[in-house]
Amino acid sequence: MGIRAGIVVTGTEVLTGRVADRNGPWLADRLLELGIELAHITICGDRPADIAAQLAFLAAQDVELIVTSGGLGPTADDLTVDTVAGFCGRKMVLDTALEERITAILRKLVTRMPDLDFDAVRAANRKQAVVPEGATVLEPVGTAPGVVVTPLAAPTPTIVVLPGPPRELQAMWPAALATDAVQAAIAGRVHYRQDTIRMFGPAESALAEALRLAEAEIPGFAELEITTCLRRAELEIVTRYEPAAADSYDRLRAALCDRFGDAVYSTDGATVDDQVAALLAGRWAATAESCTGGLVAGRLTDRPGSSAYLAGGVVSYSNAAKSELLGVDPELIETHGAVSEQVAEAMAVGALRRFGADIAVSTTGIAGPGGGSAEKPVGTVCFCVAAPDQPPVLRTVRLPGNRSDVRERSTTIAMHLLRRALAD
Amino acid sequence: MGIRAGIVVTGTEVLTGRVADRNGPWLADRLLELGIELAHITICGDRPADIAAQLAFLAAQDVELIVTSGGLGPTADDLTVDTVAGFCGRKMVLDTALEERITAILRKLVTRMPDLDFDAVRAANRKQAVVPEGATVLEPVGTAPGVVVTPLAAPTPTIVVLPGPPRELQAMWPAALATDAVQAAIAGRVHYRQDTIRMFGPAESALAEALRLAEAEIPGFAELEITTCLRRAELEIVTRYEPAAADSYDRLRAALCDRFGDAVYSTDGATVDDQVAALLAGRWAATAESCTGGLVAGRLTDRPGSSAYLAGGVVSYSNAAKSELLGVDPELIETHGAVSEQVAEAMAVGALRRFGADIAVSTTGIAGPGGGSAEKPVGTVCFCVAAPDQPPVLRTVRLPGNRSDVRERSTTIAMHLLRRALAD
Repeated sequence: MGIRAGIVVTGTEVLTGRVADRNGPWLADRLLELGIELAHITICGDRPADIAAQLAFLAAQDVELIVTSGGLGPTADDLTVDTVAGFCGRKMVLDTALEERITAILRKLVTRMPDLDFDAVRAANRKQAVVPEGATVLEPVGTAPGVVVTPLAAPTPTIVVLPGPPRELQAMWPAALATDAVQAAIAGRVHYRQDTIRMFGPAESALAEALRLAEAEIPGFAELEITTCLRRAELEIVTRYEPAAADSYDRLRAALCDRFGDAVYSTDGATVDDQVAALLAGRWAATAESCTGGLVAGRLTDRPGSSAYLAGGVVSYSNAAKSELLGVDPELIETHGAVSEQVAEAMAVGALRRFGADIAVSTTGIAGPGGGSAEKPVGTVCFCVAAPDQPPVLRTVRLPGNRSDVRERSTTIAMHLLRRALAD
Repeated sequence: MGIRAGIVVTGTEVLTGRVADRNGPWLADRLLELGIELAHITICGDRPADIAAQLAFLAAQDVELIVTSGGLGPTADDLTVDTVAGFCGRKMVLDTALEERITAILRKLVTRMPDLDFDAVRAANRKQAVVPEGATVLEPVGTAPGVVVTPLAAPTPTIVVLPGPPRELQAMWPAALATDAVQAAIAGRVHYRQDTIRMFGPAESALAEALRLAEAEIPGFAELEITTCLRRAELEIVTRYEPAAADSYDRLRAALCDRFGDAVYSTDGATVDDQVAALLAGRWAATAESCTGGLVAGRLTDRPGSSAYLAGGVVSYSNAAKSELLGVDPELIETHGAVSEQVAEAMAVGALRRFGADIAVSTTGIAGPGGGSAEKPVGTVCFCVAAPDQPPVLRTVRLPGNRSDVRERSTTIAMHLLRRALAD
């Protein structure tokens, strides 16, 4: 077994789910890249006793490295550094040079807020300059410094204490990694490979069966750590292995491609978003959305540089908007209903024309919870991909789940329909 | 102290951050509503030893209830039930009646996939009918049953084992809650109140200072468990207290309203989304988005019933789209640049007209990482809210953070500008 690590995410707002944790996943990626085995992520509120219990738990799990996030702010409910110092058996001391550096940062910030009392702000932030004795200080990116510290008595995992805001935590990570204490802790790491296969279409049971067969047929299968996951409408198979098991992995990949054919759309880690972006190079796309209400356009513009291939989109939620902005014939809506392949086609063709695009995708459906009928229940969604001088691609699906599930899966399906049309 | 609980989230895809955990937050809300103190959420991969370590940790933290999610699928990496049975000192036994019920579910599913080998699927799913001896079975919503089980020896927290897909977990929770074992475990719970104050504008330091003053002035302040959090561009103050401390909470709320005035936009839990939806009743809104690329429309259509107030939107990513779909004069773009209050105004006015709407909001900005200049750096975003016969509301901001931060914060600001314009 290589070097193991644990992550402690603190913050009542994260524990209670009011804020989604972005630090655990981000740190997990960094550890993975380094070849460090992430064993546990633990989340607790801003309570010293619970934070201390998690540190003790992780230390007992033979981790060499613990990374904490959160609890470094100026408010009185932020107690992580104190608690880590206690766990390490170290006193808290005021670092006066650090206090001066924090004050300098605050002075700059405060110039943008002229009605703020600077002394009050400075007092509120003084607490952030009190650090465990013997700790290495990580310079603040916001106003909160981090620390790297080790316990005075065994077990002695190296503890990296970082602030909660993802932007600050991410910017401070390289400095944490560069400290002697962290370098010593992770010296014995193994370099794993990780590869991802993505499929769109097959059921999870069919994949389970394929993996059972592969287990019987592929020598060294046991050396592959395979995790499968159904996400939105896709199956993702992630395999982690030491370089010596590369042959077994190659055979697994070949077996899955063989069995599932075109449903395997990616074996190199690329997502459908990556592929659509690459395929769109030199072409203009447009969207015409009803039930997805802008999420397809939002997804297409998520990537830097998307202004080179997304001309634009229309969210035509009302029937009037479908006619006025996309030129959909009101009679078509009257005859077939707004949720129909006929209307989906007219929307896509309208978007193509209005934006002068090379390809357009449309969605119209019933996301729920209301609006369903016996003939068109909640979850019914029609799609069209249109391109000049080509027959339109039409699709109707019935999706399970709640409003948010239907909207999210519809967005994924629209991406796959775009991908297939572009690749043809 | 009341009844404490812990949540164990299993799944390598969640631990490694490939899938965001939605079950921890959802379960946290349910526990909170019940007056159960959530002490810890722990996340680990699909490894029995790590799952067992987390169960032992939580049991040692005096929790009366542990809820696990994930690891109930047909694939061989799903091992949660096995591990929980081992932790409880209980044998695994095949429940043949349950197996028949799972088979019946599968038979229905398989009719939709004619090319699937039914016996292979059935074999893959047989494992799901093997449950700990003495456990209460929770009927499957997908194909995976849950269980409620208690250890044979102390410590004996009640353990609820639920599947990973949020839709299944959520649908099975009421049945889990209704079991005798769970009811017995949570019998001694305290009913807390929780109230939320939301502010848009003030800095976190200013809030910290206000809370410090409140602590000195308000009797019973120590009875309030206050957590503050900076989320997107908003500050959220959540306070949890026993009913006897209601007077102290009322004084805290009054003190914050007094100090921050209009910046406190909600004291009843309503989000800006809730308020905008309520204010729009009987009116039609439209959007015209550039840098947010559909996210404002996506947020406005997130709620059921939004078709009653969102007419539609245009994502005018290219300059041509701004002119063609929204009627923005190309000379205006030439003179002032696409990211300017002049163009933002023309976009909003264009959307108002094209959709025949009562109010329209527009965004145009530089989300980055490229496209910035000395005069208009990355993060510069212009907004306009337009309504017939009213002067337009214009705003330009410079937002920190990466592309995703800028897009998300811009979306929140657009919502607040809409709220203010509608409330006036």
